[in-house]
Amino acid sequence: MIAEQTLTAQYVQVRMHSEAICRGLETEDYVVQPIADVSPPKWHMGHTTWFWETFVLIPNAPGYRLFHDDFSYVFNSYYETVGKRVLRTDRGNMSRPTVAGVYAYRAYVDEHMGRFLDTADLSPDLYALILLGLNHEQQHQELLITDIKYILGHNPLLPAIEMPLTRFEEGRNDEAKDIILSEGIYTIGYQDTGQEGGSFCFDNELDRHNVYLNKTTLTGSLTTNGEYLEFMEAGGYQNFRYWFADGWAWVNANGILAPLYWHKIDGVWWNYTFDGLVPVDINEPVCHVSQYEADAYARWKGQRLPTEFEWEAAASELNWGTRWEWTNSAYLPYPGFSTAEGAVGEYNGKFMSGQIVLRGASVATPDGHSRPTYRNFFQPDKRWQFTGIRLAK
Amino acid sequence: MIAEQTLTAQYVQVRMHSEAICRGLETEDYVVQPIADVSPPKWHMGHTTWFWETFVLIPNAPGYRLFHDDFSYVFNSYYETVGKRVLRTDRGNMSRPTVAGVYAYRAYVDEHMGRFLDTADLSPDLYALILLGLNHEQQHQELLITDIKYILGHNPLLPAIEMPLTRFEEGRNDEAKDIILSEGIYTIGYQDTGQEGGSFCFDNELDRHNVYLNKTTLTGSLTTNGEYLEFMEAGGYQNFRYWFADGWAWVNANGILAPLYWHKIDGVWWNYTFDGLVPVDINEPVCHVSQYEADAYARWKGQRLPTEFEWEAAASELNWGTRWEWTNSAYLPYPGFSTAEGAVGEYNGKFMSGQIVLRGASVATPDGHSRPTYRNFFQPDKRWQFTGIRLAK
Amino acid sequence: MIAEQTLTAQYVQVRMHSEAICRGLETEDYVVQPIADVSPPKWHMGHTTWFWETFVLIPNAPGYRLFHDDFSYVFNSYYETVGKRVLRTDRGNMSRPTVAGVYAYRAYVDEHMGRFLDTADLSPDLYALILLGLNHEQQHQELLITDIKYILGHNPLLPAIEMPLTRFEEGRNDEAKDIILSEGIYTIGYQDTGQEGGSFCFDNELDRHNVYLNKTTLTGSLTTNGEYLEFMEAGGYQNFRYWFADGWAWVNANGILAPLYWHKIDGVWWNYTFDGLVPVDINEPVCHVSQYEADAYARWKGQRLPTEFEWEAAASELNWGTRWEWTNSAYLPYPGFSTAEGAVGEYNGKFMSGQIVLRGASVATPDGHSRPTYRNFFQPDKRWQFTGIRLAK
Amino acid sequence: MIAEQTLTAQYVQVRMHSEAICRGLETEDYVVQPIADVSPPKWHMGHTTWFWETFVLIPNAPGYRLFHDDFSYVFNSYYETVGKRVLRTDRGNMSRPTVAGVYAYRAYVDEHMGRFLDTADLSPDLYALILLGLNHEQQHQELLITDIKYILGHNPLLPAIEMPLTRFEEGRNDEAKDIILSEGIYTIGYQDTGQEGGSFCFDNELDRHNVYLNKTTLTGSLTTNGEYLEFMEAGGYQNFRYWFADGWAWVNANGILAPLYWHKIDGVWWNYTFDGLVPVDINEPVCHVSQYEADAYARWKGQRLPTEFEWEAAASELNWGTRWEWTNSAYLPYPGFSTAEGAVGEYNGKFMSGQIVLRGASVATPDGHSRPTYRNFFQPDKRWQFTGIRLAK
Repeated sequence: MIAEQTLTAQYVQVRMHSEAICRGLETEDYVVQPIADVSPPKWHMGHTTWFWETFVLIPNAPGYRLFHDDFSYVFNSYYETVGKRVLRTDRGNMSRPTVAGVYAYRAYVDEHMGRFLDTADLSPDLYALILLGLNHEQQHQELLITDIKYILGHNPLLPAIEMPLTRFEEGRNDEAKDIILSEGIYTIGYQDTGQEGGSFCFDNELDRHNVYLNKTTLTGSLTTNGEYLEFMEAGGYQNFRYWFADGWAWVNANGILAPLYWHKIDGVWWNYTFDGLVPVDINEPVCHVSQYEADAYARWKGQRLPTEFEWEAAASELNWGTRWEWTNSAYLPYPGFSTAEGAVGEYNGKFMSGQIVLRGASVATPDGHSRPTYRNFFQPDKRWQFTGIRLAK
Repeated sequence: MIAEQTLTAQYVQVRMHSEAICRGLETEDYVVQPIADVSPPKWHMGHTTWFWETFVLIPNAPGYRLFHDDFSYVFNSYYETVGKRVLRTDRGNMSRPTVAGVYAYRAYVDEHMGRFLDTADLSPDLYALILLGLNHEQQHQELLITDIKYILGHNPLLPAIEMPLTRFEEGRNDEAKDIILSEGIYTIGYQDTGQEGGSFCFDNELDRHNVYLNKTTLTGSLTTNGEYLEFMEAGGYQNFRYWFADGWAWVNANGILAPLYWHKIDGVWWNYTFDGLVPVDINEPVCHVSQYEADAYARWKGQRLPTEFEWEAAASELNWGTRWEWTNSAYLPYPGFSTAEGAVGEYNGKFMSGQIVLRGASVATPDGHSRPTYRNFFQPDKRWQFTGIRLAK
Repeated sequence: MIAEQTLTAQYVQVRMHSEAICRGLETEDYVVQPIADVSPPKWHMGHTTWFWETFVLIPNAPGYRLFHDDFSYVFNSYYETVGKRVLRTDRGNMSRPTVAGVYAYRAYVDEHMGRFLDTADLSPDLYALILLGLNHEQQHQELLITDIKYILGHNPLLPAIEMPLTRFEEGRNDEAKDIILSEGIYTIGYQDTGQEGGSFCFDNELDRHNVYLNKTTLTGSLTTNGEYLEFMEAGGYQNFRYWFADGWAWVNANGILAPLYWHKIDGVWWNYTFDGLVPVDINEPVCHVSQYEADAYARWKGQRLPTEFEWEAAASELNWGTRWEWTNSAYLPYPGFSTAEGAVGEYNGKFMSGQIVLRGASVATPDGHSRPTYRNFFQPDKRWQFTGIRLAK
Repeated sequence: MIAEQTLTAQYVQVRMHSEAICRGLETEDYVVQPIADVSPPKWHMGHTTWFWETFVLIPNAPGYRLFHDDFSYVFNSYYETVGKRVLRTDRGNMSRPTVAGVYAYRAYVDEHMGRFLDTADLSPDLYALILLGLNHEQQHQELLITDIKYILGHNPLLPAIEMPLTRFEEGRNDEAKDIILSEGIYTIGYQDTGQEGGSFCFDNELDRHNVYLNKTTLTGSLTTNGEYLEFMEAGGYQNFRYWFADGWAWVNANGILAPLYWHKIDGVWWNYTFDGLVPVDINEPVCHVSQYEADAYARWKGQRLPTEFEWEAAASELNWGTRWEWTNSAYLPYPGFSTAEGAVGEYNGKFMSGQIVLRGASVATPDGHSRPTYRNFFQPDKRWQFTGIRLAK
């Protein structure tokens, strides 16, 4: 988010970016859900709109009339306080509402939001809620990109498509020196800059608090495809020594042999990208690996993954932003964390079980949606995000 | 199939009917696959076209060029002799080829088929293959209708849609007398009428052979919704006595309480049809029941389902054609049945395990695709076809 | 059952045979249930006893007192009219009642049964019920043997054990001529011989009725291990052409490569028997094959499995009794079949869905428990019984 | 472990305690495995013995001969470096080796171990390995108790049994004041006391390191059954607000309504203990709750679970030892943690994914096997251990 913009301008920019991401899609691409993790693009486009209607317009815009009764049911997500949501695995079975219907819904809500933002005298709470809505939609923008990649990358035609990535998808890996962190106390968590209108963080980045860290060295560069291939060729996927018990079970149950989207064809490794199938580039940072794979690779190298605190303490010296970087930290509350009241309060806290923190950002992260205190989180077997590896020792 | 027509005219009529069935669909409706049994309409439209391309044009039309290499992979079905098919449960994850692409495929193949039929001097084998192709597409027309009904009937919006049913969907049940079959020998199976160009049956209707039947009485009418409601209200779904062990497990595992598409709203039973949600009409023949339900209902009435042989022996006196009628016959080969050579030979024999014969036809069966010797077959728990109940004793 | 014996003598003989089957077991062998199909021997020993207590003693023996309240819950089977049964897959988790407790239960019930049989003036209904109980226990004797074989045959130690098989387990295959059945009407089903006290059949063998059969040839001998090995070596398990669609899915989902209990060790096929692991004897009839395998073998030979009616019509000329012979007949009711009232009526009818008839008998069938009209039945994928193959054409 | 004892005396005492735990079992109780988490007691008794044979006797005792070739296969656990282990879920299907065989194995190994300990001149490495073996067997002693409780507590007879719990099973909850921890740096992890022969810790308790803690208050007492009943009666299990998303899914998928072993009979809550079914005692600390339940209870109280660091920092002031106390800390490596070489190195590190730390000890923990730095760990849905709740804020 660029803070100098008016809120209306920010709103318009965010909403346009969601649509820009979908510009290359066929209508059919909006509908399918090949696995439970991946939502149909149509659903993302409806759900982000539903957020504005449900949390901003209905309670705050006098006389606002619902676009359609059923949409609230269809596009609800995990907010269990607001009616019965559509089961996540059913999303891909819904041909209606149509894509055209969803765009009409977006236009209707955008028109009312525009009018509302131009005229309302926003209380601080409402202002904060709108910032949350913008950040919420930006989160879904990254999911839109990863979900579209999954849908097309699992289609037998392996189609290419235009996609507005923030930087080139396969970020070239700069030469970088190791970063050394000295032992001592570090302060972690988001700090409000006091800058008017520009200050936003998620609840999980608070409270700001001290941690005590031992001396650590972090690699300045991310692990490349070439380095990861060495692990593969050394039998990394075949040797249980490098794996968590859960990771080893995952490798065997799913027949994992390489990062997601890699295909070995006539002895050569290819990689599905938004440009279609291309040869694996050994200089690019490895992408689409699970935390299990990241940890196994680190162990094979005789190193380990950094904790999220080490990462944040060193962030100003790291070259980050092309891959979400797996840490060795479980996603847990900071001291003083408390859940907000009401539906919005369901936002982050309920996921603080069984997930792993990722730090940084990726080529799919929208402009203005990254900062050193940002805590992304996924289960350790997930790898359809643009995830990569940085080592510590 | 109306035999007096030229083969070209028959081809055009069949192909147009497939498209007529889909006329009311939105693009999105073509794509989804809510359960493994239900194929996306797009797939049916591609698969029937693939049949003509693969079995007629490629081997017989000199100089014919494939529409697209990948389509053969994507639209193959169970014909394991022709390359590796797309796994059935993956069909609903494929956004590409698009619906427009499938219609272009149909147009391309239709053009070549038209030219071929007009000019080729058809051998008897080729003539028979084309008849098979027409009947194959007609089978998929019925599946198209039932699959569309399932997709829309499980959408939260429960949309209505125009659908060219052969007769009214909810066929009014005529008063009809019981039919009495006397004990003795009956001849079963398809008999060629010798009529030129009009003779077609599936391999499973042969050989014509004798069976010995005991004296039997069949009800002249199908069981109505009203009669079936009496079974429900008498606790039929709660009493294991009426059910096969497998059926009782099915009822409990799936929480079955009523026929498919019935919804109890504020104490009243409603029924999803192509006109949307309408109140259950007690005079219409019950529809969308499994064989487990049909058998349990029969047992509750102190009667039983007829065998397929009893049905065929009595067919000329029965009023049939609105519901596929569950029998108590497993789908097994007739004496002398033999599998044809090659891919077409995979047609029916491989399903002669674990399935039940249904006789008659339904409101979704295309004109000219029914006869008294026709053997339809499904597993006993399936009920998304237009299935109904006739009793015997 | 040997009809000349008194009922008491028959009772004693049957009960002793159950215990003879278990004589070689360790206490631990009585307890486990490696798959849902296989019941712990302890359960069979308790369940057969529970039958006598529940259906004979409680309703008919004045002053009889239950051995233990909980046993009725624990040893109930599928008789849903008599209280809530223990879920079949939980049977193997129950360490109590102990084996000693079950034998005490047997002794208690046997004592009361002995007194009852000696003194009661049995009505024809009660006489019939006792015959049913004896046959019920004999059915469980065959299951005891097959379940014990499964338990020990899946133990890493592959222990040998003494087992009183009726004939040698691996019945030598006699040279035998083909049997030719001429076209016409045959009468099928059990016929009461009028012999006092000796007449018993299950309800599924009635009513006696006519069938019309085409001309058929049956092989006089069962398929041998050697013949079956030819099928295996010809790639039979790798070629979908020979298999039902369901069978092919079963082969692939379970990685089936040979009959049950066969192990290929250093290139040689071994067979687990009650003598431990022995080399496969190519002259013995193949054993422990599913109907899918039997049917695929037949198709590979260009033949088919007989129907149960062909088998019964030819039975007097066949050399049968060492293997249950898979037919191509689904297990369905005969004309006039009706379910008895009450719990005993749950006996057979509820399984007339999804199962296949086997005819004959096996080395595990108790003396006096086989006849040409006997209809055994299992799902087509089951193969832990002593099942074999006879061909027809 | 009591350090003043000779190693031989310690060995004898630990081995005898394993057998004391099993004294009340019937042979059948040793065999079953109702769920994958619960191992058959026979397996624990064999596996702990296998540890001594494999890691101590074979490599170190000259001329030692294996008790039985197959036992190494059967009683291996997760040590993937030492041959192919029996799949965990198959353990309950193995009737052989018998219980008597396992006791013979114990006697044989004990005899050789006794001779070895009396005569060997133990290197420091070997000494450490034997301490590890003793602690390994003590860990299995606690699992033996909890697994026996699960087996008997899921048997329909709900048998009572003598069990040598270290303290009374349902530890009375002392009145205790809250403990206040002030903000600052604390040192965490095991510190060697230098005491000869007495120093043992698991690798996961190292390295000793600093953490920075905020001010925290811990409850001095554990949550009682009475307090937990208030949560239940306030609808705690029905309100998603108190639950992690994963926890809420777990509650609904498994129909969880109360702690494990609680049964509501005629409106009253009963509790299965080793004394059989007894009424729930409202004064005792709640037991057999998952971390999901512990966390939900804490959230309902407006508090939270402590971290493992807060717990350890406050341990000297806490009254602990009757319940394993769920923390809000994921089980992760301490700074400087490294995996030992070889099979023993597989011990703890491989489980550092997806599990939660528990601190303290329970009534089932053997004497001498607890200390303030001990890190127990289980998945958050597990509750067959003696787990309880302490709150923080």
